[in-house]
Amino acid sequence: MAMNAVLSTMQNGHILEADLEARLMAGLDAVEAKMYDICNSDVTVLRDASRHIISAGGKRYRPRLALLAYMACGGQKLDDVITMSAALELVHTASVVHDDINDHGVIRRGKPSVNAIWGRTFALLTGDFLFTKVYELMAPFRDLNIVLAEATVALVEGETLQAQAVKENRFTREVYMDIIARKTAALFKAGAVLGGRAANATQDVIEALSLFGYNIGLAFQVIDDILDLTADSVQLGKSSGIDLEQGRGFAAVADEPTEDPMEAIKRKAFSGDTIQKGKDQARLLVDMAISQLDVLPDSPEKSALIDLALTTIQRDH
Amino acid sequence: MAMNAVLSTMQNGHILEADLEARLMAGLDAVEAKMYDICNSDVTVLRDASRHIISAGGKRYRPRLALLAYMACGGQKLDDVITMSAALELVHTASVVHDDINDHGVIRRGKPSVNAIWGRTFALLTGDFLFTKVYELMAPFRDLNIVLAEATVALVEGETLQAQAVKENRFTREVYMDIIARKTAALFKAGAVLGGRAANATQDVIEALSLFGYNIGLAFQVIDDILDLTADSVQLGKSSGIDLEQGRGFAAVADEPTEDPMEAIKRKAFSGDTIQKGKDQARLLVDMAISQLDVLPDSPEKSALIDLALTTIQRDH
Repeated sequence: MAMNAVLSTMQNGHILEADLEARLMAGLDAVEAKMYDICNSDVTVLRDASRHIISAGGKRYRPRLALLAYMACGGQKLDDVITMSAALELVHTASVVHDDINDHGVIRRGKPSVNAIWGRTFALLTGDFLFTKVYELMAPFRDLNIVLAEATVALVEGETLQAQAVKENRFTREVYMDIIARKTAALFKAGAVLGGRAANATQDVIEALSLFGYNIGLAFQVIDDILDLTADSVQLGKSSGIDLEQGRGFAAVADEPTEDPMEAIKRKAFSGDTIQKGKDQARLLVDMAISQLDVLPDSPEKSALIDLALTTIQRDH
Repeated sequence: MAMNAVLSTMQNGHILEADLEARLMAGLDAVEAKMYDICNSDVTVLRDASRHIISAGGKRYRPRLALLAYMACGGQKLDDVITMSAALELVHTASVVHDDINDHGVIRRGKPSVNAIWGRTFALLTGDFLFTKVYELMAPFRDLNIVLAEATVALVEGETLQAQAVKENRFTREVYMDIIARKTAALFKAGAVLGGRAANATQDVIEALSLFGYNIGLAFQVIDDILDLTADSVQLGKSSGIDLEQGRGFAAVADEPTEDPMEAIKRKAFSGDTIQKGKDQARLLVDMAISQLDVLPDSPEKSALIDLALTTIQRDH
């Protein structure tokens, strides 16, 4: 798919070895096909809404991470990790569909959100459908199932902590880090671990991949939130500012006086910090992530993992 | 637990063999404990809201069905089926939490709904949390996982068909049967099948249990909808009439003129039929279900399954 080709050549100026690039593209295309196929249903609104959000694209960091972790651990049969990579991306997809209900998000991945097109009731059910499809996809993987299940629990907890922090106006640095650790880093970590486990990597390597995924997940989210504050919605492909602005919520839309909520939110999210400090922190997290990969032998696949880590902080959308 | 004791003695006047009753009660108590324990979280709103809806009770038909199917197939180690019975009930619980968002339900199981206490955002996330806990509970059961995953997909499809039928004013008898087959019968069927599979029943017996569960699920929902039309909310323990009344939905609350929506809905749901015809049909479904049990040897456990089937149509709440 064109999008994957674009993302691949984006990788920090490095030229991936031709064979690796071909295998990665084939893997990502297979992940897309798996997601598309599993979301078939004779209940057309679920099929159409699911495929709408899947086809809208997205950066596909999580499947790329799982596929590259698998390959960097010497995995040769990409098929082994396609299904779980699709499940991983569907967890993320389900969560953004439900996010857009709670945040009133109308643009997602540069297209109208499921919520905007089909309304709240069907958006809620489409998110549920995607969660159940994760469960269906993962059914055959007994030992690996718990990895994704726990990450999914963490994601829901992180989303809840975020909604609670905004509601209670308690958006400290510690709360913020706890939120992004659960809502984003847990799933990145699961992706790296699933890739390594599918390739039968040693426990040392799994632990290194776990920290690698976790740290680039944190970095990814810090940069995402900075972009959310500074970019416009054309660059971002989603309703700009909504992630941090959601404190306004349902009730407040009617009740609160008109003001500039973004200014208050910026103060909350980065109190005592500057945008530059956030970027520095993300860079530090990525350096820590990359240092974990010392346990792996040098290879084009390892280089591609390093490139992926750097890509999380070198982007404008 | 007191509720389980009450339900047990309710069973159509039959006196369960003392030993069977003790084992069933122990099993149901273990299912309660499993649900309660798995919903622990340091994110207190998820923990409290989950446990609120779990502790509110409910009829626990689905776990009872799984436990009795297991025992009627000669299963001796109830522990084998406790976890999956808890998962089965949590699928149902997650769906009612999300239902109450879409239907604006304020009473559930005789208590305020999660939606009513914690609001839409946290109710949505609590439902997601419960779905992820199903996934976590079922992670160890490779071969049986797909049974519950498929039933969960069907449930979400059924809820979606219902929302769509109401929205499009297309509530024919055929559509109604398709809806209840997916949103209710599929999970009853899964419960019976999981019980049989956990007891290593033969394929013949599994197929009989599958039809047994499916048919009592249909009967249960027909009676539920009739009660919804005829009972008041004190008898019912939930907001009366909402299941069929939800065509009013979010938008219509503001837009539609005040009228009596229940009259229109009754005509839609049972067009050409009477309440009595619905009851007759439910009785027929239960008879068909019971006839499936011919493949099982007579036993107190089989009698208890027959009683459970009869209970679905002999109730006033």
